[in-house]
Amino acid sequence: MSVETTGRRRRADGERSREKILQAAAELATIEGLNGLSIGRLADTVGMSKSGLYAHFRSKEELQLATVETASRILAAELEPGMVAPEGKARIVALCDAFLSHVERRVFPGGCFFASGAAELSTQPGRVRDAIATSYRDWIALLQGEVRTAQAAGEIDEGEDPEQLVFELNGILVAANVFFLLFDDPAELVRARRGVRERLENSH
Amino acid sequence: MSVETTGRRRRADGERSREKILQAAAELATIEGLNGLSIGRLADTVGMSKSGLYAHFRSKEELQLATVETASRILAAELEPGMVAPEGKARIVALCDAFLSHVERRVFPGGCFFASGAAELSTQPGRVRDAIATSYRDWIALLQGEVRTAQAAGEIDEGEDPEQLVFELNGILVAANVFFLLFDDPAELVRARRGVRERLENSH
Repeated sequence: MSVETTGRRRRADGERSREKILQAAAELATIEGLNGLSIGRLADTVGMSKSGLYAHFRSKEELQLATVETASRILAAELEPGMVAPEGKARIVALCDAFLSHVERRVFPGGCFFASGAAELSTQPGRVRDAIATSYRDWIALLQGEVRTAQAAGEIDEGEDPEQLVFELNGILVAANVFFLLFDDPAELVRARRGVRERLENSH
Repeated sequence: MSVETTGRRRRADGERSREKILQAAAELATIEGLNGLSIGRLADTVGMSKSGLYAHFRSKEELQLATVETASRILAAELEPGMVAPEGKARIVALCDAFLSHVERRVFPGGCFFASGAAELSTQPGRVRDAIATSYRDWIALLQGEVRTAQAAGEIDEGEDPEQLVFELNGILVAANVFFLLFDDPAELVRARRGVRERLENSH
């Protein structure tokens, strides 16, 4: 095996373990919090040495930011079935359903990663909070764009304020996440699916 | 001063400091989390010795439970203006407004104490989680009762499912809390007030 091959293999191994660490971190953060992500604790969870983890992340903040990035990628993959639905109203419903499905299947054991992160960090200014806020803004902008598309297609009344409508849809999703977890009751998700559909029915 | 008077004064002093500790604990918990409430940290915040605090609370769990109880009392006092509104639809609007007002005035610096607590503890079974779930159930039952009263008075359509309606109203309140804090934007509260009114308009 040449030196070059060994180097490439090492890098590939390094990326795989980085990915494995961040996947575990994103899951753990929804239980223990992003502030609860200590390098020591995470090393135990993934079965690596602390020094091995320090080789991947220079600081706790860097670990937290990489965790938010990984959680964004996981959520984007979960929302993919929504993104392939026809644009406009159908896509809004499909995106909300995909979100609720990822809560129901406990893709993150503590529910929506970003809801957990926002609840924990919204009063703690810094780069991690900003990364969470940016993810939420992207999600809100995505839904508002679909509302405007639906309005242009005559599926949603022109008189609806997209900001107001998306705020209310997000309310349904956020409540579903909170109450499904707190009461451990799938009826909360049934209410959410019904709420999304009825809110959109009332808008045309 | 008799021994009895001294004893009574000591008890009164003890209650006052207990109250002061728990008020500080309820506020701190919305920033640092209920798990972040260490007796040492709290002793620093209220300027007491750790041993002084141990005299009040035998364990961290007891401190957390007493903190939830104090937060319930603070929230109940905040909701009082809602409770004096005429029962039915007017009371639902007034209760939601009172809730949003306490978020806006940052009565708890990290927003709704129970939303913070639920986000942190919903996947951590135990007495503290149960106390938070019970508070939410009481709030939901209160609103559902007002919906039924409003239905009996013909203010809300008989066809509305009170569980569904209250779920959606709570969605608006929960979203207002999350997004007002995360984006530090009062427009989120304006959207919530409008959302509550329009949801109730659409229900008769």
